[in-house]
Amino acid sequence: MAQLSDRVRALMQPHLASIEPYDPNFTPCRVNLSANENTYPMPAAARASIDAALAATPLNRYPDPMSNELRAEIAAWHGVNPSWVCVGNGGDELLYNFLLAFGGAGRTLLNCPPCFSEYAFFASLAQTKVLDVWRDAETFELDRAAVLEAAPKCDIAIVTSPNNPTGDLASVEFVREMCAACPGLVMVDEAYGEFADAASSCEQLLSECDNLVVLHTLSKAFGMAGTRVGYVIAAPDVIDAFAAIRQIYSVNVLSQAAALAAVRARDQFAPVVDAIRSERARVIESLHGIAACGLPLEVWESEANFVLVRVPNATRVRERMRDEKSILVRDFSYAPGLADCLRITVGTPEENDEVLAALAALLKEEIDSCHE
Amino acid sequence: MAQLSDRVRALMQPHLASIEPYDPNFTPCRVNLSANENTYPMPAAARASIDAALAATPLNRYPDPMSNELRAEIAAWHGVNPSWVCVGNGGDELLYNFLLAFGGAGRTLLNCPPCFSEYAFFASLAQTKVLDVWRDAETFELDRAAVLEAAPKCDIAIVTSPNNPTGDLASVEFVREMCAACPGLVMVDEAYGEFADAASSCEQLLSECDNLVVLHTLSKAFGMAGTRVGYVIAAPDVIDAFAAIRQIYSVNVLSQAAALAAVRARDQFAPVVDAIRSERARVIESLHGIAACGLPLEVWESEANFVLVRVPNATRVRERMRDEKSILVRDFSYAPGLADCLRITVGTPEENDEVLAALAALLKEEIDSCHE
Repeated sequence: MAQLSDRVRALMQPHLASIEPYDPNFTPCRVNLSANENTYPMPAAARASIDAALAATPLNRYPDPMSNELRAEIAAWHGVNPSWVCVGNGGDELLYNFLLAFGGAGRTLLNCPPCFSEYAFFASLAQTKVLDVWRDAETFELDRAAVLEAAPKCDIAIVTSPNNPTGDLASVEFVREMCAACPGLVMVDEAYGEFADAASSCEQLLSECDNLVVLHTLSKAFGMAGTRVGYVIAAPDVIDAFAAIRQIYSVNVLSQAAALAAVRARDQFAPVVDAIRSERARVIESLHGIAACGLPLEVWESEANFVLVRVPNATRVRERMRDEKSILVRDFSYAPGLADCLRITVGTPEENDEVLAALAALLKEEIDSCHE
Repeated sequence: MAQLSDRVRALMQPHLASIEPYDPNFTPCRVNLSANENTYPMPAAARASIDAALAATPLNRYPDPMSNELRAEIAAWHGVNPSWVCVGNGGDELLYNFLLAFGGAGRTLLNCPPCFSEYAFFASLAQTKVLDVWRDAETFELDRAAVLEAAPKCDIAIVTSPNNPTGDLASVEFVREMCAACPGLVMVDEAYGEFADAASSCEQLLSECDNLVVLHTLSKAFGMAGTRVGYVIAAPDVIDAFAAIRQIYSVNVLSQAAALAAVRARDQFAPVVDAIRSERARVIESLHGIAACGLPLEVWESEANFVLVRVPNATRVRERMRDEKSILVRDFSYAPGLADCLRITVGTPEENDEVLAALAALLKEEIDSCHE
C-alpha cells in the first residue's frame, strides 16, 4: 500500500487519512496455507451445478437486491423464516454494515482480541470506538468476567467462534450472558463454525436473544472465498436495518447463482469438512510430536480450519518457509498478543505433510544455528 | 421496505434511523425498460468467452484485491497507467467510497438534481451535507453560473454526463471550470458515456485536472449490470485513497473474470451500442410524432440509453402500461423537479415498438376519457 499523498490526505475525512488498510500479506507460493481458504477440490458434482448455473445466468439485469432465492434456501437449511436472513457481499460487507448501522461516532464496540483485525478496521472506518477486552495472554481464553463487566458500557459487541486466529470457541452459555449484558446487538462471527461441533453454534439462542446476530460465510466450509457470499441470521427487524443501509445491488448475479447451487448441494461438502477436521487433529498431533522431540514449538487446540503455533523467530521461520520451500503461512508476530505466532491453515494431507516437514526442519536448523 | 421497528431504530446511528433506501420500484413484466439495462443479447462470442472464463475460475481463493488483470486491461483500453484505475463492486461501491473518503460530517457535496438519487442516499449514509444546485426546471440544463458559484463552498462535487434521468451532457469545458472552482474532488459519472460521442468524455481532462475522478461501469454499454463491475479513473494518489478504505475483497473472482473477458472482447459490443444509439434517435423521433398528433407528451433529447418524457397523469399511465401491457418504465413523478416524468430505457426495436404503441394508445385513452 502506497503512502497517501499529503494533498489527498488533506482531502480525506480526518479519521480516515491515516487508516491502515487490511493487509492479507500475500505472496504467490506453491503451497498457500495463509488465508484459511479451503484448499480441497470442490466436489465435482457441486462444481458442475455451479458452472451450469453460471452459464444460464443472464448478466444484463440488475441482481435481486435481497438474493431471495438464495435467502430462501439458506433459511430452509437453517430452519428459520427468510425474513431472518440477509445475504451480503462476503462477511465483510455485513461486518462493515453492522458497524455502520449500529456503531458510529460516540459509540463503542466491545472487541475480544486477539481476533480478526477487520473488526477494528471497520470500526475505525465507521468512527466507532473500540473497547478491547483481551483474551488470556497464554491460553487465549476469553476473559468472561471482564467481557461481562464491559458489555453494559458498550453499544455493540463482536465475538468470534471459533475465534480467528486462536481457534477456540465462545460457549453458547457465555454468548447468552453477553446478550443479556449488552444493551445493543451482539454479533457472533461463526465464519469457521462448520469446522466445530454443530452443538456449539449460537444459532440456538436466536429465539431467546433478540439482540443476537450470527454471521456466516460460504468462504470457508464451502470453499468459495472467491465468490464473496456471507449472510447474517437475526431477528427480522434487525435484518430490516441491514437491508435499509446496504448498497442494494452488492451481491452480483453470478455469486448469487453459484452460492444457490452450492447451498443446494450442501450435503456434498460434508465429507470435505470431515476431512479437514480429521487433518486438523493429525496436524495438531504432529505438532505436539515435533514439540515432544525437543523443538521449541507451542500449539493451541483449534475448532477451525487452521492452527496457531508459536515458534522462536516466527517472522524469520515464516519467511524461510516462503522463500526456501514456497510454502506460505500467516505471520502474526506483529500483532499485539501474538508475539512469535504463526497461523497455519489446515490443507490437504499432502500440503499438511509439507508444512509439517518444513516447520520441523527449519526449527531444527534455527536451534542448531543458535547452538553453534 | 418494512418500516424499521422502534427498538432497532433506537439502536441505529441517529442519521441512519430514518434513511430511505434506494428503491428500484421493480415489478416483473414482459418488457422491462425501467432500469436502463441493456436489453440486447450479449454478443455470442463474448458470452462464450465469459462462460469459458467462469468455468476456469477457481472459487476457493480470495480475489485479487485490486483486480489487477482487469485493471491492466481497462487501463490499456483507456490509455492510462494501471495506477490510475480502481475497480469496484459496481459504480455503487465507488460512489459510496467517494462519499466516505472525501465527504463526511461537516462536509458538503455539490449535487445537480434532478440526477441519480443514490448520490444523495450515499451522502446521507456518510453524513455528508448536500448542496443542491437545481437544473433548469424546463430544459434540465445545468445552471452553470450557480454551480460555479457554489463550487468553492463545497468539498466534493458530482456531475453526471450524460445525466440520469435527463439524458444531457455536461460539457468538457464546464467540467474543467468545475475542477478549477472546487477545492476538492470532482467526480464525473460517465455510466452512460459510451452512448454519447466519444469526444464528450471528460477523461481528456485527467492530465490537466488532478482533482477529477471519472466513473465508469460495465452495467450499461456492456450489458453487465448483474456482474457489478465499475471503475474510476483518477490521479494515482486519489486511487490510493480509494484503495485504502475499500473492503479489499469487494470484487469477487467471477465478476473479475467475466469483466476481463468482456473488456477484452470490447470491440464486439460496439455494434450493440450503435444499435441503441440508432434506436434512441428513432424512439425520440416517434415520440415527437406522437406529440405532433396532438397527444400531450413532452420529450427531451438524450445522449444515454434512455429517454425522459412528461405526460399527464404519468403515474397512472405507467401503472396502466405495467398492469395492462406488462411493460415496465420508470416513474419519476414523485421526484422533485420531475413531476409527471417517466424514464424509458431504449430497448430492442421490438421492445421500443411496444412501448411507443402502448404509450400512444394510453395517452389517447386518457385524453378521450377527459373529454367525455
